[in-house]
This record gives sequence, structure tokens and C-alpha cells, in this order.
Amino acid sequence: MIPPPSSFLFQFLLLFPLILSHSDSDSGHPVLPRPLIVEYPEFDAVLRCGAWRVAGEANNLGAWAIIPEECAEYVKDYMSGKGYALDLEMVSKEAEEYARTVPLGYDGKDAWVFDIDETLLSNLPYYAAHGYGLEVFDHEKFNDWVEKGVATAIEPSLKLYEDVLNLGFKVILLTGRNERHRSVTVDNLINAGFKDWDQLILRTSDDQGKPAVLYKSEKRGEMEKDGYRILGNSGDQWSDLLGSSISVRSFKLPNPVYYIP
Amino acid sequence: MIPPPSSFLFQFLLLFPLILSHSDSDSGHPVLPRPLIVEYPEFDAVLRCGAWRVAGEANNLGAWAIIPEECAEYVKDYMSGKGYALDLEMVSKEAEEYARTVPLGYDGKDAWVFDIDETLLSNLPYYAAHGYGLEVFDHEKFNDWVEKGVATAIEPSLKLYEDVLNLGFKVILLTGRNERHRSVTVDNLINAGFKDWDQLILRTSDDQGKPAVLYKSEKRGEMEKDGYRILGNSGDQWSDLLGSSISVRSFKLPNPVYYIP
Repeated sequence: MIPPPSSFLFQFLLLFPLILSHSDSDSGHPVLPRPLIVEYPEFDAVLRCGAWRVAGEANNLGAWAIIPEECAEYVKDYMSGKGYALDLEMVSKEAEEYARTVPLGYDGKDAWVFDIDETLLSNLPYYAAHGYGLEVFDHEKFNDWVEKGVATAIEPSLKLYEDVLNLGFKVILLTGRNERHRSVTVDNLINAGFKDWDQLILRTSDDQGKPAVLYKSEKRGEMEKDGYRILGNSGDQWSDLLGSSISVRSFKLPNPVYYIP
Repeated sequence: MIPPPSSFLFQFLLLFPLILSHSDSDSGHPVLPRPLIVEYPEFDAVLRCGAWRVAGEANNLGAWAIIPEECAEYVKDYMSGKGYALDLEMVSKEAEEYARTVPLGYDGKDAWVFDIDETLLSNLPYYAAHGYGLEVFDHEKFNDWVEKGVATAIEPSLKLYEDVLNLGFKVILLTGRNERHRSVTVDNLINAGFKDWDQLILRTSDDQGKPAVLYKSEKRGEMEKDGYRILGNSGDQWSDLLGSSISVRSFKLPNPVYYIP
């Protein structure tokens, strides 16, 4: 399949005539004329926003509420282009390789924990309609979206999900969604192709107001008390993965759109 | 300052005439002619290698000995271009912001731990001469390089280092280098502008053969026993940052060239 030209490539193509039109024979560069300085801000924004995104994936950023304004186009291009898709494939591939090779007990206690939103289910249409992270998160509007129950599977995650089930793992779904959304979440997951999970854990009234990293650590602690060995954990937020009772291996799915502490 | 054209940009410019020369009026694309399929592998390699690099920064990769062969050019371009420099600046900036805002005890026990190689000191000339990670790591050759004592400061790290000292942190250097390299390491650090550290911890004979993550966890455990509060930790390897006695905040500097378990 020939992929469509990305808008990143497209930017270069648009700039190319400008770059060519400026012939700077004093630049001393042996191959290329020096481009007009006015082109650089856009190129620099791509580099700077790339550095910002990678810093987030490496858990180097402090808490943030919205994406940097200068990165609005970059994040949109990344999410709707090949970048996000490739990163999702890469993390699932690595997780699968680990899942295939890690020794299992085959006693029903080998567990793989999955977060739901932006891990198994994609809410991209919602975020596309709300500036890809440029708007402050609105719980009410997002809940309206959740209640539609139309989120689609993140395909590489669905493949990993099926693979770990086939390998003999128990799958535990651990989400920040509210218990009152259990029914719509179950229906949405099943419609998207997910099935045969062992447990689906949602936030109860006891969990309200807790940071995700604490809520999820407590729930993983309960899994351990129940005898589960948490061998794998997939989530798009570091708060899905860190804290206590952490998994033997954790897999951070890409998400430059929002941050949950 | 006008940055030099990156070789990433350069690749596009080289491909551009080929892309233009192929006019596919049947493609149906409203703006651009469809490029020759032969161009795509290179563009795809950049995207795939980018995904591989980000997966490493997010700690999603299993152990690896050399970089993927197809990523040799990509890693070289990244390390010698603006990408690496920008990522280093981004992580130091985030660390500085945290250092300025985290509450300190001012009792001489607020500690910031720094790794040395690829964190404070750059061995880029060594890796440039050895394929930027394409060759299997050779301890003997690397030790020869270390003994020259000519590694240069990673400038954004030097700035962070000075800032945390000025803020009142105690700086502890924790390196996988061998105790027999203490003297050359001290000289190299001082020549590169680093000074006033509280402790410099190197591997003794007791530490030989231990994975870095264990060796460094043990040493951080000893710091805690000595009453230090480890508030910040900077390292280019996840094995600098994870394990036990982990820091309140950890900062992962970029390194797509080598992996230490």
C-alpha cells in the first residue's frame, strides 16, 4: 500500500520553492543554498514539538493541562498520520515479544493489566472535535461521548489482547471510568472486538478524587493479594504504570493529547 | 542563529526531483502527484526508526545489543543533528523547573543523583568512531577512550548541575565506571566544568557483574540510609532510574545508541 503524503512531507514540499529561490553563495555550504530564515520557525516547531512529545513519553514532563499552543498542528498531524499508528504498532510488537517469552505459571494467576481509554479503545473522534488536547479536558462532554459507546478498537492493542489471552494470561481491565459506565463500557468493548476478560475494574465512589496513580496502585495491590502475578501492564498514561505493585514489564502507549496524574 | 540544513531535510531535497518527475494523474490526489514507490522505504525508515527510538525512551523495548541496522543513518543524523540537542535541552529544562519548585529541607540531605556517561559527559566522539551503536559494545576499547579523559560536558546537563547546586541540593554522582577510573573521571569532570559534588560513587570489586539497575538501586538505598532524600535523578538509561529507592522525580536523558540493563 502506498501511504498518502503526510502533511509533514507536504510542508517541506510547500517550502521547497522558497528555499530554492534564495541563493546564498556566501553561505559556504557546499551543497545547498541556505534557506530563508522565515522558513525555520515551522521546521523548528516540528523539532521542538517532537522533543516535547518524546519528553512526555519518557515521563520527563511535569503535569500539564493542555498541549503547547505551538504544537497544535504537530499533534494533529501526529495523531491523524502515520506517526501515532506506527508508535502503537511498535509498543504492541514489543509487548507481544515479551508476552511470548516470559515464563508463565499456567495456574490462572498470570495477569496482564490493560487500561481502556487510548489503550484498548480510541476516543480519537472526541479529541479531534476538541482540538487534539488544545482544549482543557471537560469531564461532562467526555462523559457524553463515553455514553455513546462508539469508541473503536486500537487495532494493534486488540491483536496484543488476543495474543496474551491465547498465551494463557488472565486479562484484567483497570480503567479510570466510573462504575456507572460499566454497562456502556462492556457493550463498547464487545462491539470493538474485546472479550473474555477476567475482571473489569472501574472507579467506585470510594475511589473518587484519588489520583489515578494511587487508585490503580491500590487495585494492583488487591490483584496481588488475590494471588495474581502482574507480568504485563499496558497503558497510555504513566499513572497507569507507576506507583506500587508495578508490573514486571510495563508498556507505555503513545498519548500526546492529554495527561492524567 | 540559522541552523544548518539537517540531513533529514537534505534527504527530502534529494528526493524532491524524483517525486516531481513522476506525474500520476490517475492518483486522484487533489494536490500532489503520487511519488514513486521507491522513495517510500527511506521515508518509512525515518518513521520506523523514530518509533523505535521513542519506544526506547519510553522504556518499551526489551534488552538490545546494537541499534537496528536500518536505523544506522537515522541514529547518526539524530545524534549529530538538532534532534539530540533539543531533547537534551528539553529534559534539562523540565528538571530545572522541578528543582526550582520542589520543597527542600535545607539540612544538607536534599540530594540530586546524576549518572555520568551520556548524562553529564558526552562520549559522542567514541560512538561516532564506532558506528553510533551499530557495533557491539567493546569494554576494552571504551575503557581506552575513558582513560583519555577528554569527554566533554553535555551543556544542558552542566547548566542543570550548576542550578541544582545553587538551589542547595547535594549532588551525588553514581556511575557504572570502575573505581580504578576514579582519578581520570575526576579530572575529566573538572576539566568539563563540573565541581562541588558531594560524592562520586563508582563500581568497586563488590559491584562487578551486577546489573546496573541493581548496583544503582543498592547505592541509592545506602544514600537513603545515610539520611538523604533523593528528590531528583538524571540518567540516560532506565537502569539509572528504576529498581528500588527510586527518586521522587526521575529524568531520562535521550540515548538511542546503547542500552545498559
